[in-house]
Amino acid sequence: MDLQQLARLVSDKTGIPWGPRNAERALAAVFVSDSLWEIAHKSDEPLPAVSALVGLLLEEGMLRASSEGIFLTEDGKAFCESMGVSPFEDHTCPSCGVRGLSLDKFKGALERFYEIQRDRPEAAIRYDQGYVTPETTFARIALADGRGDLRGKDVIIFGDDDLVGLALAMTGLARRVAVVEIDERIVEFEREAAVKLGLNFEVIMRDVRLPLPQELLKRFDTFFTDPPEAAEAMRVFVGRGISALKGVGGAGYFGLTRVESSLVKWRSVERLLLDMGVTITDIIHHFNEYVNWGYLEQMKAWELAPVKQFPSKNWYYSSMFRIEVVESVEVPNADATGRDIYTDSESSTV
Amino acid sequence: MDLQQLARLVSDKTGIPWGPRNAERALAAVFVSDSLWEIAHKSDEPLPAVSALVGLLLEEGMLRASSEGIFLTEDGKAFCESMGVSPFEDHTCPSCGVRGLSLDKFKGALERFYEIQRDRPEAAIRYDQGYVTPETTFARIALADGRGDLRGKDVIIFGDDDLVGLALAMTGLARRVAVVEIDERIVEFEREAAVKLGLNFEVIMRDVRLPLPQELLKRFDTFFTDPPEAAEAMRVFVGRGISALKGVGGAGYFGLTRVESSLVKWRSVERLLLDMGVTITDIIHHFNEYVNWGYLEQMKAWELAPVKQFPSKNWYYSSMFRIEVVESVEVPNADATGRDIYTDSESSTV
Repeated sequence: MDLQQLARLVSDKTGIPWGPRNAERALAAVFVSDSLWEIAHKSDEPLPAVSALVGLLLEEGMLRASSEGIFLTEDGKAFCESMGVSPFEDHTCPSCGVRGLSLDKFKGALERFYEIQRDRPEAAIRYDQGYVTPETTFARIALADGRGDLRGKDVIIFGDDDLVGLALAMTGLARRVAVVEIDERIVEFEREAAVKLGLNFEVIMRDVRLPLPQELLKRFDTFFTDPPEAAEAMRVFVGRGISALKGVGGAGYFGLTRVESSLVKWRSVERLLLDMGVTITDIIHHFNEYVNWGYLEQMKAWELAPVKQFPSKNWYYSSMFRIEVVESVEVPNADATGRDIYTDSESSTV
Repeated sequence: MDLQQLARLVSDKTGIPWGPRNAERALAAVFVSDSLWEIAHKSDEPLPAVSALVGLLLEEGMLRASSEGIFLTEDGKAFCESMGVSPFEDHTCPSCGVRGLSLDKFKGALERFYEIQRDRPEAAIRYDQGYVTPETTFARIALADGRGDLRGKDVIIFGDDDLVGLALAMTGLARRVAVVEIDERIVEFEREAAVKLGLNFEVIMRDVRLPLPQELLKRFDTFFTDPPEAAEAMRVFVGRGISALKGVGGAGYFGLTRVESSLVKWRSVERLLLDMGVTITDIIHHFNEYVNWGYLEQMKAWELAPVKQFPSKNWYYSSMFRIEVVESVEVPNADATGRDIYTDSESSTV
């Protein structure tokens, strides 16, 4: 057995394009992780592929599973060594993680936000939800503020289980904040918070898969969204965002994981973005940290997991993309309801 | 006068695509900067465009220049306010800047590197040089190490005034380190350091514009380069890097500025990258900090500058790109000597 063969077995089983480098990354993470979730996080490999790999290594006796988690056996260590695999090395900044950002200027708003968000609706599998930490929500605001995309600007958020709309309204930075959200619970929660805190922001209950109405087209400077990971969902959500922008100079922010998207899918997403007239200005690794959600056992990932182990730490992260429009390209505003835009072979948290 | 008109004047003068959002960014930086160099840095706008803007604002009485620097006048402030321009906001992490990285694990090597690099050759205009700070050199190593691209790997560097090859050899992480360098002074400096410190790395004196020789093709896991900013130079340098990689899973690192590249140029560079079979996995803003170089008065930027003022701080930064090969695409290995690949309408430090 070598990395090439291991990668082929994983690829055959999952339909995900895998090579020796992917297998190596996953093994490097196995050294320093005791759970499937953390291996997926640290390796940046899709969870279905990591599941298949762990299953194979358990069969081969290179991994063993106990009540404490999963560990490399002596055989497994010897195999890694013979393949030249080193343990994953971490050099992330202890003070900001990997974001390069300080939240100091939002300290007060963040503390108020902690209070308000306590009663937020829990993540629902129906809408492929999974919300980020309050720090991540404010890191998005700090990032966009540092890029000049918020002050005096008109901002729209497509899907807001992360409560970016609420947090942004609390800072008072933007001229206009509009949220488009399908989930009645979030709509109600944000509308109530707006009344309670005397905030000025609009929460529009609407399915993002529906074409944008005239009154939201070409009206905004900045958008945020956090689409489901399937390529088709990226196209629809980011497409809506771009359609909502006034044009050249408008900016958009969204996340893309490695957990549910191989770099092959990433490339097709990047191509799609460039074709929509934008430049990718930032891709910040592991920027978005998601809070573990309640529907783990209903997910495809749970079914795939060769060891049924709950994550003890947050493990689902995504890279933050910032895009900026440099050419006005007409993005189709077609109806995407009635199609499954949520799943493909790499998705697993739905 | 409004932002649209201002942008058009700048565009007409420089040939750089500019819109109101670009003008706004530059004005936001004018609020918090007292030098042309810092305005270019903080605004992320190309220096020739910033120069033209500052020239116009001086003529209009919205800026004044004194021995302390350049400042907004009351008229200028009123104009900015009427256009809804806010001062540039900074949220960068005080401990790591924007890199999201800690250099703690390289403390010892970095200290030894400080000593060694004292005698490095000064940046030469002839090769469009301009080297980064020692911290940046090690940040590149920390970044690549955290992505699993160094340990036990074969690494090649195209153009090494930044001394990444030397620094990497000092860490002992890689299996093989090869530097391709045209400048005899750097070749000699690195070869001497290798002997003096007993380091194992190859320094090959060679023009990167020449086709890669057979013995360097498809031999490496990782490359670093920091090309001149013209689109053609990016194509040649990054193309050489990709040609040197073993194939799928190989990774490359290089910088791209905003000082010499508009986001329109960025988009064409990104398209080029995807066409060469890679995915862009990271774009880290202001990652690379360059040490001010000695040939300022010989540059096109100096000629363009409406106020002849020396930078008091480092001001030239670039975003760090990481790319990874996901599809084997044959990248042309053609001869690029005898062509000017160094300049286009946006370049100014040559």
